[in-house]
Amino acid sequence: MRGLGRKFIALGILAVLAAAPIDTRAAVSELRGTGDLGIVVERADGALLIINTSKRRTIARVEGLGDLSHASAVFSPDARFAYVFGRDGGLTKVDLLTASIDKRILQAGNSIGGAISDDGTLVAVANYEPGGIKVFDAETLAEVADIPATWSGGRSKTIGLEDAPGRRFLFSLWDAGETWIVDFSGPGQPRVSKFSGIGKQPYDALITGDGRYYVAGLFGEDGLTVFDLWQSQPEPRRILRDYGRGEAPLPVYKMPHLESWAVAGERLVLPAVGRHEVLWVDLRTFEEVGRTIVHGQPVFAVARPGGRHVWVNFAHPHNDVIQVIDSLTGTILKELKPGPAVLHMEFTPRGNEVWVSVRDRDQVQVYDARTFEKKAEIEARSPSGIFFAARAHRTGL
Amino acid sequence: MRGLGRKFIALGILAVLAAAPIDTRAAVSELRGTGDLGIVVERADGALLIINTSKRRTIARVEGLGDLSHASAVFSPDARFAYVFGRDGGLTKVDLLTASIDKRILQAGNSIGGAISDDGTLVAVANYEPGGIKVFDAETLAEVADIPATWSGGRSKTIGLEDAPGRRFLFSLWDAGETWIVDFSGPGQPRVSKFSGIGKQPYDALITGDGRYYVAGLFGEDGLTVFDLWQSQPEPRRILRDYGRGEAPLPVYKMPHLESWAVAGERLVLPAVGRHEVLWVDLRTFEEVGRTIVHGQPVFAVARPGGRHVWVNFAHPHNDVIQVIDSLTGTILKELKPGPAVLHMEFTPRGNEVWVSVRDRDQVQVYDARTFEKKAEIEARSPSGIFFAARAHRTGL
Repeated sequence: MRGLGRKFIALGILAVLAAAPIDTRAAVSELRGTGDLGIVVERADGALLIINTSKRRTIARVEGLGDLSHASAVFSPDARFAYVFGRDGGLTKVDLLTASIDKRILQAGNSIGGAISDDGTLVAVANYEPGGIKVFDAETLAEVADIPATWSGGRSKTIGLEDAPGRRFLFSLWDAGETWIVDFSGPGQPRVSKFSGIGKQPYDALITGDGRYYVAGLFGEDGLTVFDLWQSQPEPRRILRDYGRGEAPLPVYKMPHLESWAVAGERLVLPAVGRHEVLWVDLRTFEEVGRTIVHGQPVFAVARPGGRHVWVNFAHPHNDVIQVIDSLTGTILKELKPGPAVLHMEFTPRGNEVWVSVRDRDQVQVYDARTFEKKAEIEARSPSGIFFAARAHRTGL
Repeated sequence: MRGLGRKFIALGILAVLAAAPIDTRAAVSELRGTGDLGIVVERADGALLIINTSKRRTIARVEGLGDLSHASAVFSPDARFAYVFGRDGGLTKVDLLTASIDKRILQAGNSIGGAISDDGTLVAVANYEPGGIKVFDAETLAEVADIPATWSGGRSKTIGLEDAPGRRFLFSLWDAGETWIVDFSGPGQPRVSKFSGIGKQPYDALITGDGRYYVAGLFGEDGLTVFDLWQSQPEPRRILRDYGRGEAPLPVYKMPHLESWAVAGERLVLPAVGRHEVLWVDLRTFEEVGRTIVHGQPVFAVARPGGRHVWVNFAHPHNDVIQVIDSLTGTILKELKPGPAVLHMEFTPRGNEVWVSVRDRDQVQVYDARTFEKKAEIEARSPSGIFFAARAHRTGL
């Protein structure tokens, strides 16, 4: 079914591309601001689309980025360069203005995501194999530090790499159950602080937008672990002990993304692992204050900037739907059916529109985030992640 | 004293300018991202400096902007254009890439500030004379709407103009004691909702960064008025009734800026009118939860992005000092003496550095916001407001 559909869609794309070719030269020659640019990952092709959110259109395609399954990106402070983290250990610096690869290195065998320091000078990558993080000069991609995640059991896979204020990075060790803080604020080699016993198998983490709380989700036991980075001596604290996969968990089709935790007013919204629920967590007490039953297993629960609504997409086989939840009441306000395999949602920075990747329709759809009116359909080959350059100015992505 | 000092400083500037002239051509010809650009207002000269925050240097000077006392600015979504609101009713659209005036109109006799809609298509200006707001097409500066602030007493001065999600603007009427919401989300002319009796002489207002609360400060009586814009029927609500100028107020040397209200963790920070204090207000209850005694009458109380610290500057005669307050404890962490007439502070969007205008030293100083180390001194002629292009992506400025 999917294969057949894709063939027809592919023909459709060819027609569209012939009618409105992507003109890379225009991108190169035109004087433009970069604040409204972004990228769409075409995972099957190892390519990116560079897009303009104001005009809701594609500017150019950049190819040759390797394996982009599960790819993510951060941006330079001038919002000109995207640093794209590929699953194959590739780190690619893409120039959004010239629509070309500025630099590309293969820095490990298998990587899982990265971060950029608050001053924009350091790019860090978390690696599964060999386990640890590597840190690079954001300008040249020259290696600045190699921090192997060694513990008594050897080298651990690393996950949940996040930037924190003051040229710091945090990450967690899946095998070791540890969180490390790496501090580049001083001269010379970084200071590394290690916290053990944070819980079994941390699988992902987030840092809140204010840089205050680092929260690691646990796969091997119930609950999550939070660090308050505003304290001079941060300590791991276990929260939501009653929350977890439970005694008779549903099969987990896709682990939800913690980085997508949303702050909506006074509450965090958490896609529950293996359940058709999102959880509401009070930001002061870190106690659960409610649940909303949703359409399927949530993957991303993303607050519209400002937090008025939360948009949720789902794991297979419910991944053709988006539900929009009212943050005040916790009720479902709207259900959209963009099409098969809704993989990602990215809001414009002031929250007026949202871009949605619909992989098996080979399409990105743009919605008015208040009226839910569809404003545009943009062709893309098996689109997955969408990342806007305005992320350059935010902590905790 | 000031005059003499200024002469010596002026000689110093000439020497610096001769040694390192500002090369406007470089700005025009160079391909660059716009995410790390910004402007510094040179109020005495009706000029702007275009600056680069990554390199901590001036790129170009743009002249011919009229009366820039009390000027402020907003930015287009692509972070390329600054819309500068001058006191003389001038609205100037400045191209940061070509370092030139793209368009300029005189839209009223006396204006007080402006805002840009969340979709970046509308620029609104609040006017004292004639009282009301005008709304312009962001691309062309063609007039889209003229909304006179008429009430039983004639036309009111307007203040506290803010953008809210969904192509809305809010502002208040000084003479009438009203707040109006102007909604451009539909086709045709905007819908205007009027709220009367919000309090005597609203003098400034803010909207929180999440777009939820509009708060108007009152000059004519104690307390402030808040609207919760998340409600379908927002209603004015009086808060901090015990707060005000009191029975024996100090003379007010300069009204503090409400737009500078800072959200630090769970609290708003409010520069107290006419007192040597800042107030801490709980964001859930809108009740006062503490005060910090400070060096003088506060003008701006600005949270470092993330809210860990609050930086405060002061009215004459204490305006050579900045105090930095710890948000957790409310205690003063650090005192800096940048020099005479510290007028404004602007943080880089991720909070690693802060730019400070020191008018009577003809200088902008850049500080590391964590270590307080001075990183750069940049010559500027009587600098006042500093505005970074990353504001393009934020609500409530």
